[in-house]
Amino acid sequence: MTTDNTDVLIIGGGPAGMMTGITAAQFWPDKRITVVRPEEDALVPCGIPYIFGTLGGTEEDLAGRAPFLAAGGHLIVDRVAEIDLQEHIATLESGRRIGWERLVLATGSRPFVPPIPGHELEGVFTVIKDYDYLDELLTETLPDLRSLAVIGGGFIGVEFGDELRKRDIEVHIVEQLPQLLAASFDSDACSIVEQRLRENGVHVHTGATVTTIEADETGKRVAGIRLVDGRLIETDAVLIAIGARPNTDLAHATGMTLARSGGVWVDGFQRSREHPDVFAVGDCAHKQDYFTRHASHALLASQAAAEGRIAGMNLYALRLPRANAGTIAVYASQVGDLAFGVAGLTEASAREIGFEVFTGTSRLPDHHPATMPDTHEVFCRLVFDGNSERLLGGQIIGGPTTGELVNIIGVAIQLHATASDLASFQFGSQPRLTAPVHPIVAATGEALRARVHCLDNLRGHA
Amino acid sequence: MTTDNTDVLIIGGGPAGMMTGITAAQFWPDKRITVVRPEEDALVPCGIPYIFGTLGGTEEDLAGRAPFLAAGGHLIVDRVAEIDLQEHIATLESGRRIGWERLVLATGSRPFVPPIPGHELEGVFTVIKDYDYLDELLTETLPDLRSLAVIGGGFIGVEFGDELRKRDIEVHIVEQLPQLLAASFDSDACSIVEQRLRENGVHVHTGATVTTIEADETGKRVAGIRLVDGRLIETDAVLIAIGARPNTDLAHATGMTLARSGGVWVDGFQRSREHPDVFAVGDCAHKQDYFTRHASHALLASQAAAEGRIAGMNLYALRLPRANAGTIAVYASQVGDLAFGVAGLTEASAREIGFEVFTGTSRLPDHHPATMPDTHEVFCRLVFDGNSERLLGGQIIGGPTTGELVNIIGVAIQLHATASDLASFQFGSQPRLTAPVHPIVAATGEALRARVHCLDNLRGHA
Repeated sequence: MTTDNTDVLIIGGGPAGMMTGITAAQFWPDKRITVVRPEEDALVPCGIPYIFGTLGGTEEDLAGRAPFLAAGGHLIVDRVAEIDLQEHIATLESGRRIGWERLVLATGSRPFVPPIPGHELEGVFTVIKDYDYLDELLTETLPDLRSLAVIGGGFIGVEFGDELRKRDIEVHIVEQLPQLLAASFDSDACSIVEQRLRENGVHVHTGATVTTIEADETGKRVAGIRLVDGRLIETDAVLIAIGARPNTDLAHATGMTLARSGGVWVDGFQRSREHPDVFAVGDCAHKQDYFTRHASHALLASQAAAEGRIAGMNLYALRLPRANAGTIAVYASQVGDLAFGVAGLTEASAREIGFEVFTGTSRLPDHHPATMPDTHEVFCRLVFDGNSERLLGGQIIGGPTTGELVNIIGVAIQLHATASDLASFQFGSQPRLTAPVHPIVAATGEALRARVHCLDNLRGHA
Repeated sequence: MTTDNTDVLIIGGGPAGMMTGITAAQFWPDKRITVVRPEEDALVPCGIPYIFGTLGGTEEDLAGRAPFLAAGGHLIVDRVAEIDLQEHIATLESGRRIGWERLVLATGSRPFVPPIPGHELEGVFTVIKDYDYLDELLTETLPDLRSLAVIGGGFIGVEFGDELRKRDIEVHIVEQLPQLLAASFDSDACSIVEQRLRENGVHVHTGATVTTIEADETGKRVAGIRLVDGRLIETDAVLIAIGARPNTDLAHATGMTLARSGGVWVDGFQRSREHPDVFAVGDCAHKQDYFTRHASHALLASQAAAEGRIAGMNLYALRLPRANAGTIAVYASQVGDLAFGVAGLTEASAREIGFEVFTGTSRLPDHHPATMPDTHEVFCRLVFDGNSERLLGGQIIGGPTTGELVNIIGVAIQLHATASDLASFQFGSQPRLTAPVHPIVAATGEALRARVHCLDNLRGHA
């Protein structure tokens, strides 16, 4: 059998793979860049919840291959059956063989399904990023659905819950922790989002552990979920949304080193341990937390895209000298028109790690004067390290600018901003676009003030 | 005559004065903080253009004194006639005398009126930040107005022009430079805004110098403006919007040192040269450009507010060690629903200063997939120093997130971000809130790519 050759072979066409491909095509224009993925058109992963409401169709959520093809990339629609790291050859399911100079694993993740009895029943779903699976869910299952329980009150669970209630489906969100989104927001911020969901008619069950998914009289179809306190929530369907795990089947088969997180071990430039010519990016690659260097299980498109850029630029030489510094978990979402987002540590998570923190909170309109049309209130909580004064994290709840406000916090963390920096910085203010005082400045001022008064008291006691 | 005493006396109640007052009240809670200003309620200065359109009334644009009073501040509605720096006493126009420990000058600016013949005619206006003046303009003059020429195509001129055309007034904007907003944006970006204004029915005259403002047959009222090429633009009224100059009458009367810009000379903590107990903030204080240290004539609320925070925290001890680093001129505005903003240097201004620059431009939707409702295209131009790789400036044209995108650029400049930093950073992406690839990352990638290819060529020639 003949072997086709490419210079760079990327396995997987999600955000990490496509970002690697586009970046590689841009930075190494003399190289042939090939992506192998099972779909002609892949889905925008973070757009998946919106297929079921806002977008109204699976075909509305396609990640175009146009930018990659326009950059000069090549796409093969197929699956990789096997890779031979010694020979530098991948064998596809069709039998086709592809030789490479550089290999990039971007094989993504799979939804994690806990061993709850009943998880195999008809009517139990997970968030599989597959066009056909989701399209069938949308067109076959949803039209008859009257009620659904979402197991897991993280971002995905909350987004699905809010989108499905827009279709007049009775939605229950069931979360084991005391609050929804508790891993990402401090308690008062979680409460704001929970309240909005309840106002929108979503049934929120927190501190609620699921013991079994119960079957109907046929024994085949889901009838509801049973909680540890004995309560039964009757529903037509169940969506399990409690996270994902790296898909490393191909890497594992070659004996490559996997990290304890389950992801492929990579260095700061996304290169694998044994094979400097083999890279891994996105959900299938091991991630460290920015602050602790512990394994991070936050599998996010923002992180995947950053890793794709790092790998893509560094395939043949280190053209991007700044290495992967670890994940700060930047993300944002919306319930109705209430947006919320986070970057870095919450107050609770910072204290848990061991930081001595000081915090500040502001509540301001996102336009000024607040008589401007379309004005939303913005809640901003910032968390600083008490010793170095460095910004550790921030939470925003607000309107359409929430995503970029969170990005300001993310950039400030990654550039080691201190409270003094942020308090004295220039922030633009414009009536129709921003608050009168920037919420980040206001929250920083509030934090510094609390800190100064605390120091005053120490001096008083000295 | 008796003298009342305060601890901190702030003269002027615009953004700089009020921000100083609020910050002082927060950080020095044991001190009595007093603001003297001529108005019970002051106007939000950047909201002034919107009085004439979007807001619909002067009373809709009031900067509340509530936050200052709630923080424990005191407000005196009066004007300061004289200050005695030796005795630490201010005499008000009412005759009242106020003693102080710390004095803060926040006396603002006045519109600059060039010596164009005819500028004193009836129907010629400037943007005076005074409630009564503007209220009369709105209620007495505007209802009968059929046409208006704005002299000056900067931010203020463009905002007024767009707001007034919404009232079906025939609006002409006349700018001496080859393009509107030419000091703030590179040529292609200026063209986008100009085009939108023209689509909205505004008459844009660029490269057009005004020689005289012509009078009607009575010799008293404006009839139009005459351009250097002889053309007459007939209008009922003329608005002069070509900038402002520091109002330093009080400081000048005491013999305090003024900088060549006309503003009060201040150190990095906003302290005056001769009197460490006397501070100056906002438009009346001298400003340096962040990059060159030349005098900066950009009088902006963002800069004024930053200076107010620096002064307010540092009144009795340096509690904010980061000094005023100079102005990077962060601002943003809107024409219709097209928003545009800038921070730092344009490509043209960076080259003029002497930087060897490389730049990148991206054009992306502000939601993803672009089938999401309310999606706008975002234009992003970033300018980097070719030697240090540091970010020098950026321009954004887009939708509602434009103001915060510009703030990301501002924060990145002030934290000395390099192209490598920005290319590998994590930016959150969320379908309803952001682009699929962050526009700042995309533009940085584009800039780095151009730079690498340029280096490749150099290597090829070596």
